Amino acid sequence: MDFRSDNVAGMAPEILAAIQAANQGNASSYGADEYSAQLDAAFSKLFDTPCRVFPVATGTAANALALDALSPGHGAIYCHEQSHIAVDECNAVEFFTAGARLVPLPGGGGKIDPQALQAHLAQGWRGVQHHPQPRAISIAQATECGTVYAPAEIAALSAIARQHGLLLHMDGARFANAVAAGNHHAADLSWRAGVDVLGFGATKNGALAAEAVIFFKPELADAFIYRRKRGGHLFSKMRFLSAQLLAMLEDGLWLRLAGNANARAKQLADGLAGQGLRLAYPVEANEVFVYLPDRQVQGLKAHGALFHPWDEAAGLYRFVCGFDKSDADVAALLRAASDA
Amino acid sequence: MDFRSDNVAGMAPEILAAIQAANQGNASSYGADEYSAQLDAAFSKLFDTPCRVFPVATGTAANALALDALSPGHGAIYCHEQSHIAVDECNAVEFFTAGARLVPLPGGGGKIDPQALQAHLAQGWRGVQHHPQPRAISIAQATECGTVYAPAEIAALSAIARQHGLLLHMDGARFANAVAAGNHHAADLSWRAGVDVLGFGATKNGALAAEAVIFFKPELADAFIYRRKRGGHLFSKMRFLSAQLLAMLEDGLWLRLAGNANARAKQLADGLAGQGLRLAYPVEANEVFVYLPDRQVQGLKAHGALFHPWDEAAGLYRFVCGFDKSDADVAALLRAASDA
Amino acid sequence: MDFRSDNVAGMAPEILAAIQAANQGNASSYGADEYSAQLDAAFSKLFDTPCRVFPVATGTAANALALDALSPGHGAIYCHEQSHIAVDECNAVEFFTAGARLVPLPGGGGKIDPQALQAHLAQGWRGVQHHPQPRAISIAQATECGTVYAPAEIAALSAIARQHGLLLHMDGARFANAVAAGNHHAADLSWRAGVDVLGFGATKNGALAAEAVIFFKPELADAFIYRRKRGGHLFSKMRFLSAQLLAMLEDGLWLRLAGNANARAKQLADGLAGQGLRLAYPVEANEVFVYLPDRQVQGLKAHGALFHPWDEAAGLYRFVCGFDKSDADVAALLRAASDA
Amino acid sequence: MDFRSDNVAGMAPEILAAIQAANQGNASSYGADEYSAQLDAAFSKLFDTPCRVFPVATGTAANALALDALSPGHGAIYCHEQSHIAVDECNAVEFFTAGARLVPLPGGGGKIDPQALQAHLAQGWRGVQHHPQPRAISIAQATECGTVYAPAEIAALSAIARQHGLLLHMDGARFANAVAAGNHHAADLSWRAGVDVLGFGATKNGALAAEAVIFFKPELADAFIYRRKRGGHLFSKMRFLSAQLLAMLEDGLWLRLAGNANARAKQLADGLAGQGLRLAYPVEANEVFVYLPDRQVQGLKAHGALFHPWDEAAGLYRFVCGFDKSDADVAALLRAASDA
Repeated sequence: MDFRSDNVAGMAPEILAAIQAANQGNASSYGADEYSAQLDAAFSKLFDTPCRVFPVATGTAANALALDALSPGHGAIYCHEQSHIAVDECNAVEFFTAGARLVPLPGGGGKIDPQALQAHLAQGWRGVQHHPQPRAISIAQATECGTVYAPAEIAALSAIARQHGLLLHMDGARFANAVAAGNHHAADLSWRAGVDVLGFGATKNGALAAEAVIFFKPELADAFIYRRKRGGHLFSKMRFLSAQLLAMLEDGLWLRLAGNANARAKQLADGLAGQGLRLAYPVEANEVFVYLPDRQVQGLKAHGALFHPWDEAAGLYRFVCGFDKSDADVAALLRAASDA
Repeated sequence: MDFRSDNVAGMAPEILAAIQAANQGNASSYGADEYSAQLDAAFSKLFDTPCRVFPVATGTAANALALDALSPGHGAIYCHEQSHIAVDECNAVEFFTAGARLVPLPGGGGKIDPQALQAHLAQGWRGVQHHPQPRAISIAQATECGTVYAPAEIAALSAIARQHGLLLHMDGARFANAVAAGNHHAADLSWRAGVDVLGFGATKNGALAAEAVIFFKPELADAFIYRRKRGGHLFSKMRFLSAQLLAMLEDGLWLRLAGNANARAKQLADGLAGQGLRLAYPVEANEVFVYLPDRQVQGLKAHGALFHPWDEAAGLYRFVCGFDKSDADVAALLRAASDA
Repeated sequence: MDFRSDNVAGMAPEILAAIQAANQGNASSYGADEYSAQLDAAFSKLFDTPCRVFPVATGTAANALALDALSPGHGAIYCHEQSHIAVDECNAVEFFTAGARLVPLPGGGGKIDPQALQAHLAQGWRGVQHHPQPRAISIAQATECGTVYAPAEIAALSAIARQHGLLLHMDGARFANAVAAGNHHAADLSWRAGVDVLGFGATKNGALAAEAVIFFKPELADAFIYRRKRGGHLFSKMRFLSAQLLAMLEDGLWLRLAGNANARAKQLADGLAGQGLRLAYPVEANEVFVYLPDRQVQGLKAHGALFHPWDEAAGLYRFVCGFDKSDADVAALLRAASDA
Repeated sequence: MDFRSDNVAGMAPEILAAIQAANQGNASSYGADEYSAQLDAAFSKLFDTPCRVFPVATGTAANALALDALSPGHGAIYCHEQSHIAVDECNAVEFFTAGARLVPLPGGGGKIDPQALQAHLAQGWRGVQHHPQPRAISIAQATECGTVYAPAEIAALSAIARQHGLLLHMDGARFANAVAAGNHHAADLSWRAGVDVLGFGATKNGALAAEAVIFFKPELADAFIYRRKRGGHLFSKMRFLSAQLLAMLEDGLWLRLAGNANARAKQLADGLAGQGLRLAYPVEANEVFVYLPDRQVQGLKAHGALFHPWDEAAGLYRFVCGFDKSDADVAALLRAASDA
């Protein structure tokens, strides 16, 4: 009953099989292999637009390197105050950009409030040498709160971005869950709504370790290979990263895995709500945020349930369903919650 | 007939099996898993001294993060002029340290000449605000030229290091080959000879992607976890890195794999020398550097042989044997060389 | 009628005289001159404690270099949300520290609210690899709002600092105004209340360009000379910086100049209040923040008055009195305000 | 008898007068003053081409900020192995660029050997992700050895720069001495020969502290104001820097001062040669490098002469004439040398 995060899961069998299949003979190193060669085409097809794709192995690397491509050290990057880049990445963006400022903004359900963003931009930092220069907006899809930006919500932010000459980055560590959540095409949740660079996450969705940094504006990627290398993120045996990504795209595996995770989260949320518990956010992807009385927290722990304290003072807890959670896993947790 | 590098090889079967075995159920993420928990003990036993061990996935990350622990941005790091950190890592050390200077030094066979080092240190930069401050020496074991530092050679450099208050780093991307090469204990080729931090490479030796940064002076590691994270090098599914490292140590797999690579390189070197070709360096690990006439280069290529131009103007070429090379592979190359 | 900032003023005559006096013959460069040699003793006497003193030329350099001595790139530095380092220095602290995070905190009158600080520290970032590590608190004396931290207010923050293993930095761009404001000894407003490093500003107080970074914990200064140099902040003709600082200390010039500025600000504040205008903050140093109706703003401008829009949406304006403002200057402004 | 450096001198009287004159009333801060407003026009006239001009206060800042405008952190900058940026600036360029590599090249008399540069560029780093990317060449005018690049020598390097897509930076800490040395127009020694950015030094030539970073390609300067600010190099009372620079240009003061320094160095060199001593480099600007027997070194010191040991092992010493050296100063030194 481990619901702490989707990263407590291992690999999906198809990913392991792909790694095994890629382990044949010799291959050119550092991305010159036949798997890596297919990435641009595969993702361009998926997104229905030409894009340049670069594998890295961690979400933090994907975020920091993508934002490094968008902002110099004297830049400002607008993000949600609860975003992973602001809270959970130990200054990685600041490090990779040599000092860019993350400007934390409020907003319900983990989504940047466009008015808060407008208000900040209205301060008139642009062109004033004393202030970091507005360069990028970074949003997460799905968000840290397990909600999903609708295309129109992204478009509202990208309209502000265009108006102020900013670029739009999407942290898609759970992009699969966002796409699987609804009826939107991957393109509608990304570049068609104005996203310039996307970190397409596979690790949380059943890969060993694989993320794709996808540039929808190819020219933004011109220095990426050098900056990836100097960050220590160029893999010699790149075929093993690329094979994971290709396997994800094959026959829609990424959506099947994420779809299962989402469905389990929905089950869990419904069950908890049915027990009279209050959810903090709509459950649109694979995360459930629920208020639990202390007694129940202790009871769940006593039953061996693992979950993440999100805001203990407020009694708010997070349960995440990985690709591998089953009906039985959810049922077991709901029983434990009911007993607790 | 791919002898370009040891990184054209895939994984050893035992490594794949270890990854597969680690893919059971859920596990705590970010290094709190049961595999990662065994690393300190396993390597402390191997090296016969307490050490702190941190997995990362690439050799460049291992080097840059280790040196980041040894030098501030105003530091100077002494290395061989052909070293990987100076030539092949796109300023990763400078990036991670926020500006430390790599001071390239000459020396035969890829080994730093102690006199050249002494001469540089005698310039009197220590304590003078205009100059970067001497902080560390970085050597590679085996070297970029496929030679192996003997314990006394390391000790000669570490004596200089102690005399001048420097720390000693070893880039052990091919440490396994160095240990397998001779009759020296791993400790004799590292901390007993004065090494403070070692990057223990597994990737080139048959792992998917795994390197261990090993601190023999534990206090040097105090900030490592934060600096690894901000570099994007903390893996959520760390168990898969740690499992590779543990598998390497199990029953001496690392030395069997490296020993085979070394033996094949010796065969190859002997065969080429037997054909009257001149070797540039003694073949002590798994790399062969040989001078080839142009005609033979073309002939080898025509036979489908792949190898690395080391110094084309000088007619010098590199052949590397991975863990997976067989007698037949070497024989085929020697035939091609003979025919060419 | 230029009240935009204290930095619109030139030099005090005594400072010019000191520069002129220092312009005799040859002198050792880079701080080995006889003026620079006196700094440690002069400031140690002023502060009644041994301290190490390093001249730089700008307030931003003083802040960034001081904080660079307190925090690594994976650190977090707590500051007021309106602080100069957070708002007006174009990511200088992030740049010098290679990525440290400025954590903006609320608080009335430009002073950090200790409870807000405690609340942030209670989040438990210490020791957790995902989060920047708490390292320092930075406060301004006088604050950006023209208020002055009382010794007990500083001590409240430094107690939190000690409790959490943080160091305390004071941006003293207007430290002279803070000391001149009250009956407190310079030591009481700095190290005796727990300040570890102080940027002692002279530029705004009538110097050409001179700030002293003062370390009350000498060991914190060990790498300062190298980091100042690599920042381009080591002056070859250092005597001219040091002479300005010494002149400031001579016969209490710094307090006379700041005292005049404070007195003029008090006059101005009283006058404006007497005209029925509302002040935003208590006027404790040399800055006056006043709410002005639009009509009056236009009228003042028409009379040639210059002042700084602090928060135009709120109708809040800032008037700063430099060391050189006279009774007549203030009277003229008050007349203009009255006429407007 | 202080010949250690030109920076042991103070200010020329005209510079002091200019600072004094600028000390009138209030002025807009941070470069919006009337002095700073004249810089672009004044230097554009001097150089006979439109240029953008930014004052900073130190030579290291001028170099590091200029090169920061030319190279990203994954760049390589080619310079002479004895250059100030490589030897004497404590990793400032690496710091400001977030890691760019300085590639030290040999060459007689402090000038980069074009063949050595070509040989390095021929290694084929361009476009290869493992290597820092060639971005700029930096030369000093006059050089560290007191020689002056002729226009054709600069053009030879700039032709290589153009061929390889590099930009050309000139460290002009002693540019005045270079121009005063010969019959070449300032433009011929800079942009007409292919220089893209020049650090125009005034400090060594009799200013208190003032250097102008001059962009001959205006678009290269677009981010300069932000990067200067984040480096702490934006002066609030900028008028005092700009006034120094304008005073230098007025009636050719810069060339009169440098011309005197050069003439004194020539006298000194002729005198020393006349005493049978051997000069290491042609004396083309204001520096004399001479081999001295130990006995004479001791004798000169006993007579109170101050000079700089350049390469003590080789018996090589440097004597620099500042703007303020007189015939009598030189005569006194020559007498001491003769007596010693």
